Amino acid sequence: MSAKATAILLISCPDQKGLVAAIADFLYQHNANILHADQHQDAELGLFLMRVEWDLSGFDLDLLNFDDAFKPIAERFQMQWRLAHSGHRPRMAIFVSRYDHCLADLLYRYQAGELNCDIPIIISNHLDTQWLAQAYDIPFQHITIHKEAKSEAEAMQLAILRHHRIDFMVLARYMQVLSPDFIRHYPNRIINIHHSFLPAFHGAKPYHRAYERGVKLIGATSHYVTEILDDGPIIEQDVARISHRDDLDDLIRRGADLEKIVLSRAVRWHIENRVLLYANKTVVFD
Amino acid sequence: MSAKATAILLISCPDQKGLVAAIADFLYQHNANILHADQHQDAELGLFLMRVEWDLSGFDLDLLNFDDAFKPIAERFQMQWRLAHSGHRPRMAIFVSRYDHCLADLLYRYQAGELNCDIPIIISNHLDTQWLAQAYDIPFQHITIHKEAKSEAEAMQLAILRHHRIDFMVLARYMQVLSPDFIRHYPNRIINIHHSFLPAFHGAKPYHRAYERGVKLIGATSHYVTEILDDGPIIEQDVARISHRDDLDDLIRRGADLEKIVLSRAVRWHIENRVLLYANKTVVFD
Amino acid sequence: MSAKATAILLISCPDQKGLVAAIADFLYQHNANILHADQHQDAELGLFLMRVEWDLSGFDLDLLNFDDAFKPIAERFQMQWRLAHSGHRPRMAIFVSRYDHCLADLLYRYQAGELNCDIPIIISNHLDTQWLAQAYDIPFQHITIHKEAKSEAEAMQLAILRHHRIDFMVLARYMQVLSPDFIRHYPNRIINIHHSFLPAFHGAKPYHRAYERGVKLIGATSHYVTEILDDGPIIEQDVARISHRDDLDDLIRRGADLEKIVLSRAVRWHIENRVLLYANKTVVFD
Amino acid sequence: MSAKATAILLISCPDQKGLVAAIADFLYQHNANILHADQHQDAELGLFLMRVEWDLSGFDLDLLNFDDAFKPIAERFQMQWRLAHSGHRPRMAIFVSRYDHCLADLLYRYQAGELNCDIPIIISNHLDTQWLAQAYDIPFQHITIHKEAKSEAEAMQLAILRHHRIDFMVLARYMQVLSPDFIRHYPNRIINIHHSFLPAFHGAKPYHRAYERGVKLIGATSHYVTEILDDGPIIEQDVARISHRDDLDDLIRRGADLEKIVLSRAVRWHIENRVLLYANKTVVFD
Repeated sequence: MSAKATAILLISCPDQKGLVAAIADFLYQHNANILHADQHQDAELGLFLMRVEWDLSGFDLDLLNFDDAFKPIAERFQMQWRLAHSGHRPRMAIFVSRYDHCLADLLYRYQAGELNCDIPIIISNHLDTQWLAQAYDIPFQHITIHKEAKSEAEAMQLAILRHHRIDFMVLARYMQVLSPDFIRHYPNRIINIHHSFLPAFHGAKPYHRAYERGVKLIGATSHYVTEILDDGPIIEQDVARISHRDDLDDLIRRGADLEKIVLSRAVRWHIENRVLLYANKTVVFD
Repeated sequence: MSAKATAILLISCPDQKGLVAAIADFLYQHNANILHADQHQDAELGLFLMRVEWDLSGFDLDLLNFDDAFKPIAERFQMQWRLAHSGHRPRMAIFVSRYDHCLADLLYRYQAGELNCDIPIIISNHLDTQWLAQAYDIPFQHITIHKEAKSEAEAMQLAILRHHRIDFMVLARYMQVLSPDFIRHYPNRIINIHHSFLPAFHGAKPYHRAYERGVKLIGATSHYVTEILDDGPIIEQDVARISHRDDLDDLIRRGADLEKIVLSRAVRWHIENRVLLYANKTVVFD
Repeated sequence: MSAKATAILLISCPDQKGLVAAIADFLYQHNANILHADQHQDAELGLFLMRVEWDLSGFDLDLLNFDDAFKPIAERFQMQWRLAHSGHRPRMAIFVSRYDHCLADLLYRYQAGELNCDIPIIISNHLDTQWLAQAYDIPFQHITIHKEAKSEAEAMQLAILRHHRIDFMVLARYMQVLSPDFIRHYPNRIINIHHSFLPAFHGAKPYHRAYERGVKLIGATSHYVTEILDDGPIIEQDVARISHRDDLDDLIRRGADLEKIVLSRAVRWHIENRVLLYANKTVVFD
Repeated sequence: MSAKATAILLISCPDQKGLVAAIADFLYQHNANILHADQHQDAELGLFLMRVEWDLSGFDLDLLNFDDAFKPIAERFQMQWRLAHSGHRPRMAIFVSRYDHCLADLLYRYQAGELNCDIPIIISNHLDTQWLAQAYDIPFQHITIHKEAKSEAEAMQLAILRHHRIDFMVLARYMQVLSPDFIRHYPNRIINIHHSFLPAFHGAKPYHRAYERGVKLIGATSHYVTEILDDGPIIEQDVARISHRDDLDDLIRRGADLEKIVLSRAVRWHIENRVLLYANKTVVFD
C-alpha cells in the first residue's frame, strides 16, 4: 500500500540447493533492503517459486541493467523470471455486459486508490453501464456482438486494446465467450469471474443449477481465461452459506456480493504481481 | 437438548390458504404447548413444508390416537405427514472402512449424549476400527467384501440390519459403493459423507482432484444415498480455505475435520427429525 | 424482492397457548395468502415473536381498518405489534464523515434496487463525499461540527431530518458521537457500523487495537444506537481471517469490505421489517 | 507430515540487510536441502522473524555442533534463535476438569498420529475423564483442588510435571486459574483454550455473556498463558455463526466444536515449531 518505490522479482525454476543463497546474496551485494520475501516449493514437481520485493532507495543497480546483472544466476538455475517496478501502473481494460455490480465495485476501488492501475477503456456489448463509466470518468466503448459477426467484433476489440496498450483485461460479468484466437493474444492476462465454486456448475446459469441441486453454499471463482471454458488457473474463490429460506433471487443477490469480493481480490493480486502460475494453477503470495 | 417429552409433526403438502390455521387450531384444541414451529413455502412448486414440536405434558390426545384425530385435516389438505416422539431413540448402524475419524467422532458424540439414538451395530469390511467399537462398547461386525461376491456380503449386511431393527444407517467413510437393490431397502435412510463440495469432484479421489485443479477451498458434503452416485439430496456442506502451502496430505488432514463436523450435523438433524425432503433436496429446520 | 403488494405483521407478546391459532385464523378469515411466516419463542423469558407476510391481492380487509379488526386479538394476548406495507418506502438519511466506502456501497445498492427506500438527504461534517452524492443525485448537506457548538449542529441536523420526514438514519462511518438527546429522537431507528467484532474493541481505533492485540480475525458489527456507546442491540456481525502478513493498512482495507457487507445487510433487514427487538438484542427473520 | 528427519531453525532479530543471504549461505555451505522457508518482517518494530526447515540427509553438520558453527552469524545479527529436530517428540501434559470434549479430541489426534508428541500424563481435579485416559492408555493423575490449599496442589502438580520431564502443557478446559508462580515455571509453554473470541468475553462464563449480549457469532481462542488472565499471545481463533434459533445450550454445544478445532491447531503448530512470539503476539508459519 505504501508509496515507496519498490522492485518485485518473480522466479520459478527447478528446485535445487543454493538457490536462495544465490538470490539473497545477489540482492545483498547490490544493497537491496528486502521488504517482503515469500517462497514456495512444490515437492512433487520439484519446483521452486519465489516472490521478493525490495525498496529501491539505496539499491545500487539501475533496473535497466538488472537483466544483464541477474542473467548469470538466472541461467545457472534455469529460471523463468520477471522483474516488476511498483511505479509501473499496468493498463487494465474492463469488459462488461449488463450486470454492473462488478464494474461498479472495481471502479470504486480504482478511484479509492485500492487498485494501482490505469483504466484506459471499458468495453461493453450493451449501453447499460455507460452511466457508471461517465460517473468515474473512464472512456466507454460500445461494441455490439452479432452472433454471425463475432470475429469482426473481436477484431475491433483487439484493435482498441492495442491502441490503448492494454496490459491485461478483466471480464466483469462479460456474458460472451471469447474465441481461442482472441485469448491467444492475452495469455494469462484475462481475468474472469465465474458465479460458482468451480469446478461445480461450470458453464451457463450456475445459480439456477445450484438452486436446483440444493447446495448449502454458493460460490464465486476468479480465474485466468484459457481456451477451455471455465477451466483456467483459479486465482481466488469464496463461498457464502444459504438456506431453504433463500430463493433464486436471493442466491443471485447474495452471489453478487461474493463475485465483487472475489474478483477484486484477484485483480489486486494480479496488479501487485502476487500471482505465479504453474501446472494450470496459481500460487498467490499474499 | 431438553429431557422434556415432546412430539414432532412433519408435514408437506400443496400450499393453500387456511393450512396454518387448521394445524394451529387442531393443536390448540388439544391443549398443545408449542415449543418450536418452522414452516417453509416453495413458491415455485406451490409447496408447503412444516415442522412443529410441542410439549406432551398437558396435551390431551394420546399419541396412539393421533392418526385418527388428525386424519380429517391431513386428507383435506392432501398432506404427507409423519409424527415423531422425542422419547423414541432411532436405531442407527454405522458402516466404516479403514479411515476412523468420522467413526471416532460419532461415537464420542453418542457417548456425550449429543446424538439421541442407539447404535446397535458397527459394520466394517476391515478390522482397523474394532478397537474404537470396543472402547465405546458397541458391537462390531466384520464382513469382508469380495469383489465377485458383493451381493452375498450385502445380503449378510441386510440380515444384520434387520436383526437389529435398524432405522437408518450412516456411511462414515465406507469405501464401498452400495448396490441399488441394497439402497432400495433404506430409501432416504442412508446418510453418506463425501469428501468434496458436491457436485464438484463427485466420484473417486476428490482430494487428489481438488489438489490438481488448484481450488482455493476444500469441502465436504453429507447427503442421503440414492441410486445415482453422489447425487442424493444434500443435508449439509461446509468448506475450509487452503493455500499453496497445503500439500495433498494437508488437504486430507484438514478435510477430515470438515467431514467430521458435516457428517455429525447431518446425523443429528436426521435424528431430531429436522430434515424434510422434496425435489431431491432438503429443508433443514434447524 | 418481488413487486407484489404485501403486508407484514410484526408481533411480540408473552408466549401462551392459542396464539398462533388466533393469528392464523384471523388471517384466514380475511382470505390472506401467507407468503412467509416465521416465529420465535424465547423459553427463558416466556416471549413469543412473530413476523408474517401475506399477499394483499385477495385480502378482504382494508389496511386502514386493520387496527380495529385486529385489536381484540392484540388485547387478548397483550401484543406489541406493528403493521407494515411493502408499498411504503421508508425515508433514510445517511450520516457520513470522510471514509466513503460504506456510503458508496449503500448508494450503489440503492440505485440497483436492492434497498427499497428513499434517500432524501446525506448529511456530513466534511465535504469529501459530496461527489458521490452528486453522482447518485442525492441532496447533500454539509454541517460542520465545532466541538464547543455540538448541540447547535445537532439541532440543525434534527431540523433537517424533520423537514425530510426521515424514518430512520444510517451512520455510515460517521465519526461523531451523538448526544443522548439526539438519540432519544430516533429510538431504535439509528443504525451504526462499528469496525470491530463487538463487544471486543468498542470505542476508538478498533483496528489499531486489534492489530496490537494480535487477533487472528477482524470483525465488523452493525447495531442500533443507544445512549451507551457501542452497546446497542446487534443486528449483524461478520469477521475475516487475517495473518501476520497483514499490516495495519491491510486490516483497514480488508475491514472496509466487511463493514460494507455487514452494514448493508442490517439496513436491508431494517427496511424489510425483518428485525425485532427485545432485551437489548435482535431477532432477524431473514 | 513426512517421516523425514528434518531440522527447524527459528530466528528473530533486528531486521537488517544481508540477513537472509547470511543464513541461506550458511545452510548452503553445509549442503542443506531446504524444504520450507518462511519469513516475516514487522516494519514498524524493525523486526525480522524466520522459520526454515531442511532435510537432514546430506546435511554435513552434526546438530551437536550446530551451536558453535552458527554462533558467528547469530552474534553478528543479534539473533534470538532456537534449533529443533523433527525426531524429538516434545512431552505434553494435559490438564482437564469435567468437560471432556477437548481432551477426547486431543487424544484421538494423538493416537491417529496427527500430533507428533508424547503424552506422559493427564492431570485433573476431577475423575470424570479417567475413562478416556484409560481408553487411550495414558496415565491419569487426580489432584483435588481445595480453595484454601491451592498452592499445595500446584506444588504437587509441578512435582509431577518435573518427574515426567514435561516440555509444555495444555489446559483442555481446565477450570482453575493458575497462580503467577506456577506460570513462571513454564513461560510461553502453557496453551489454554478460552471459549470466546478474545478479547471479547474474557473471564468467566463467556457463552452466557455472549448469549445475553446477543452476538451473531461465537468464538474460541487458543493462547499462551501469562500472568494476566486471558491476555496472553493468541495462537489461533475461530468463530461460528449463530442465530436466535440457538439457545444457550446450542451455543455451548456448537462452541465445543470450535474449541476442539482451535485448540488442536494451536497444539499442533506449537509441536511443529511453527509459532514465534514477539510483542505479546504470535507469528504462525503454517
